[in-house]
Amino acid sequence: MGRAAVCVHGASHHERRPRLFVGKRGSGPGPGGVSVARGRFLTLEGGEGGGKTTQRARLVAALRQRGLEVVETREPGGAPGAEAVRRLLVEGTPDRWDARTEALLHAAARRDHLVRTVWPALERGAWVVSDRFADSTRAYQGAGHGLPLADLEALHAFVCGGFQPDLTLILDLPVAEGLARARGRAGAEQRYEQFDRDFHERVRQGFLDLAREAGGRCRVIDARADVESVHHRLLALVLAAFPDADVAL
Amino acid sequence: MGRAAVCVHGASHHERRPRLFVGKRGSGPGPGGVSVARGRFLTLEGGEGGGKTTQRARLVAALRQRGLEVVETREPGGAPGAEAVRRLLVEGTPDRWDARTEALLHAAARRDHLVRTVWPALERGAWVVSDRFADSTRAYQGAGHGLPLADLEALHAFVCGGFQPDLTLILDLPVAEGLARARGRAGAEQRYEQFDRDFHERVRQGFLDLAREAGGRCRVIDARADVESVHHRLLALVLAAFPDADVAL
Repeated sequence: MGRAAVCVHGASHHERRPRLFVGKRGSGPGPGGVSVARGRFLTLEGGEGGGKTTQRARLVAALRQRGLEVVETREPGGAPGAEAVRRLLVEGTPDRWDARTEALLHAAARRDHLVRTVWPALERGAWVVSDRFADSTRAYQGAGHGLPLADLEALHAFVCGGFQPDLTLILDLPVAEGLARARGRAGAEQRYEQFDRDFHERVRQGFLDLAREAGGRCRVIDARADVESVHHRLLALVLAAFPDADVAL
Repeated sequence: MGRAAVCVHGASHHERRPRLFVGKRGSGPGPGGVSVARGRFLTLEGGEGGGKTTQRARLVAALRQRGLEVVETREPGGAPGAEAVRRLLVEGTPDRWDARTEALLHAAARRDHLVRTVWPALERGAWVVSDRFADSTRAYQGAGHGLPLADLEALHAFVCGGFQPDLTLILDLPVAEGLARARGRAGAEQRYEQFDRDFHERVRQGFLDLAREAGGRCRVIDARADVESVHHRLLALVLAAFPDADVAL
């Protein structure tokens, strides 16, 4: 499984300094308030069936064992309003929305998630682990549906300025394997799984391209291994990126 | 009632040439397909209680009497998906969404409305009369909530490129009068009415400022007159802007 961490440019690449949050909430695009010691924002990304939900739970438990306050969340969703938008996105037929409408609905849900859940948690010093964030928009609506990345970056700027995760863990596996796992799940949230195989191949490649271009923020993990092995790999990557988490006990 | 038509820069300012629609639907922001003779897109705008819905029905009837195919629609809404987004926007408490989330939800509903309803109608040569469109976002989320107009223009470009109505009729009346009318209505769609008086004053001024800056696309009509007088004024403005509509019989 020697494909792990293809995009590591050195853990020191991450911003370790405490961030200053400025701007008036509600009008400026970025987080409001002022915080000099904030938590970390980790995102799990990748195509369907990569085990993000399982791995998120394991990672959150491991971080909590180290004494950290950790908020476990997801996109689209993660706040009451955003969850209402989620239902519009993940249920129904693939042609329910065109690509731009889909991107706009994800952006609306993301803004609500940030304002209600992510930024308040980070400001009080909590860590946040989210199943999906903006890289999913770049991969699904960008690489998958063909929207220009520059347009999606402009939309991201409207949502939250230059705000990005501190670390992004991309769970990668072959499309056929991921879709077989995902389609085995019950429930109404099957809209994205119904897009064709080529779409999902473009999404996978989109994530790999993003990882290469994201300048050290991303790590790619081979998700074909067993749950336990993937978990240990993820945790090792997080602790390497944030050594302070290992002494929080 | 001498305040009508404060922003008339001459009806000839309107684009009369048939428009060429180019671009691939679903990836480009603008309308797809190619049409050399398309319909006209008229929007009714203004604050709460100005009589837009009543006047829209009267205007549509008058245009249909002239033999035109007219699609009567509204925002947020005007297509099944957009109507689902509408419910998120017009019901519930004022603080349900922050300003940027609200703008993004309106943008998503607008894109769906354009793709499913407005552009197909224009392409087959029909006229479209919509109760609200993008000027409402500029007035409510821009002037009302304080989002920078440049950010809203960038969002509009993501939604539909440079697409604009052919003519915008702004029904203007004092805020106290409009809110008294609007709050007398029954129903669950009361979210915007609950914003405070100052908010609605900024919205009114926002519409008047837009009318002045929109370069001849907008007409402001005093909505304090009786329904019949306002209707005749609106119809006269439409026929002056599009003399071809008067010979469609």
